[in-house]
Amino acid sequence: MKTIESVKEMQAFSESMRIAGKKISLVPTMGYLHQGHLRLMEEGKKRGDCLVISIYVNPTQFGPGEDFEKYPRDFEKDEKLAGDVGVDVIFYPSNKEMYPEHYQTYVNVERVTQNLCGMSRPGHFRGVATVCMKLFNIVKPHIAIFGKKDFQQLVTIKRMVTDLNLDLKVIGLSTVREPDGLAMSSRNTYLKDAERESALSLSRALKFAKELYDNGERNAAKIIEGMQKFIERHPHTKIDYIKICDTTTLEDTEQLEGESVVALAVRIGLPRLIDNYVFGEPLDL
Amino acid sequence: MKTIESVKEMQAFSESMRIAGKKISLVPTMGYLHQGHLRLMEEGKKRGDCLVISIYVNPTQFGPGEDFEKYPRDFEKDEKLAGDVGVDVIFYPSNKEMYPEHYQTYVNVERVTQNLCGMSRPGHFRGVATVCMKLFNIVKPHIAIFGKKDFQQLVTIKRMVTDLNLDLKVIGLSTVREPDGLAMSSRNTYLKDAERESALSLSRALKFAKELYDNGERNAAKIIEGMQKFIERHPHTKIDYIKICDTTTLEDTEQLEGESVVALAVRIGLPRLIDNYVFGEPLDL
Repeated sequence: MKTIESVKEMQAFSESMRIAGKKISLVPTMGYLHQGHLRLMEEGKKRGDCLVISIYVNPTQFGPGEDFEKYPRDFEKDEKLAGDVGVDVIFYPSNKEMYPEHYQTYVNVERVTQNLCGMSRPGHFRGVATVCMKLFNIVKPHIAIFGKKDFQQLVTIKRMVTDLNLDLKVIGLSTVREPDGLAMSSRNTYLKDAERESALSLSRALKFAKELYDNGERNAAKIIEGMQKFIERHPHTKIDYIKICDTTTLEDTEQLEGESVVALAVRIGLPRLIDNYVFGEPLDL
Repeated sequence: MKTIESVKEMQAFSESMRIAGKKISLVPTMGYLHQGHLRLMEEGKKRGDCLVISIYVNPTQFGPGEDFEKYPRDFEKDEKLAGDVGVDVIFYPSNKEMYPEHYQTYVNVERVTQNLCGMSRPGHFRGVATVCMKLFNIVKPHIAIFGKKDFQQLVTIKRMVTDLNLDLKVIGLSTVREPDGLAMSSRNTYLKDAERESALSLSRALKFAKELYDNGERNAAKIIEGMQKFIERHPHTKIDYIKICDTTTLEDTEQLEGESVVALAVRIGLPRLIDNYVFGEPLDL
């Protein structure tokens, strides 16, 4: 396994792989790798001849007052975990390498970024789309793999790839959870002991929504109201949003007819955690 | 020479060329080819193994009330001219192929698009950057060739390619002019006989600016004032802007110190014509 910090070197490596007929898979990450990332990496390993992961805490997707500075980082541990999975290359650029002087170009996916996290994190998905576009051009993957935990991110990237005709396949994999149901996230490390139990309210509220749905409830407001009451019974919780949306447009749904997703963001003490469930799919809880 | 209308087919063709080690050059055009385009195509032929031109009148770079509908088109004539130069592929997509339902992603190059044509054509460079990003992802060129007549477009594309780490080389070639100095443009076809003489005021004003510069004038306002008076002496002219800018940032310059460009846009009857001159370079007039 090698670590590449330079854009030019990464591009040259990827171009040589492509000319040699090798299939490149990419797992973009912000590091501080957990089981969720490992699952994506294992899938990348399976599907490609050359597995590249990027480790880059991208400043342009953090808003003012968000946790860019204190986002957890541990490159040595990440390196070890990546090696164990059989990663071929870690792309590990500096901010100066990614956003040099005079930088001024951004990719905007206009509609699917408006709702959900887009409402409380303006500019977040502009940063996500932009850095992914850059990573795709640098690593030149045939396949890019993302987690479904960041559902709106996945929809945004897929939309960008389709709209801008990027010749690569985007794959979304199911959320990996702790044994008690908490969705894996690097931000879980922020949780204090007393908050850990309250953090379970997210996945349990999803399970509650699934049960209502499975019992025939199709009214979005009723499902959301039940989830809200459920979460508010837990201390340290502050709901940012609970919404039910069409999985393609991410517009709010009143009656669950087409494919719908329930997504929520809840602040538990310091961290703002997200989770989601696509109705009709299994939920391992 | 073949004509490809489908994105998928173009990508497959280009991918096979790249894997075979062939160097692809792309000349993006809106068709109605003239000597300026032919010069770009000849250069593409010289520099690559496979020359692709795109012919696409891109709706997203036209504002409301602009000439998208009546922009001149003549595919049969273009096909003949392209064949004569030795073009390998004409990429000739429909609007539906380029902007299908649910389309919503745009590339914004933020600062260099603000001044000059960006002031009177809001959204124009967003459309230009977006369609070029799409064409680059579809045609996968090693080299893309543009004319310097659209100076701000060239700066914008170069900025986008650098910022988003596109692994291709952008080349700008000198403006090709009619024997009397008028910069070649598909929009010259709009000029009525009585306006044709007035259209020469653009290139002649540039020559006037060059002469002032060569004689030591470095004050931008004085050069601009002289050009303005010169152009206003011609009938049918309505100046949109005359500006002197830094060639990298495209911000207005007061004193000509670094590399500067004088750019102008003038409405001559119906058409709005543009031209420019980079101080210190030759001007074939």
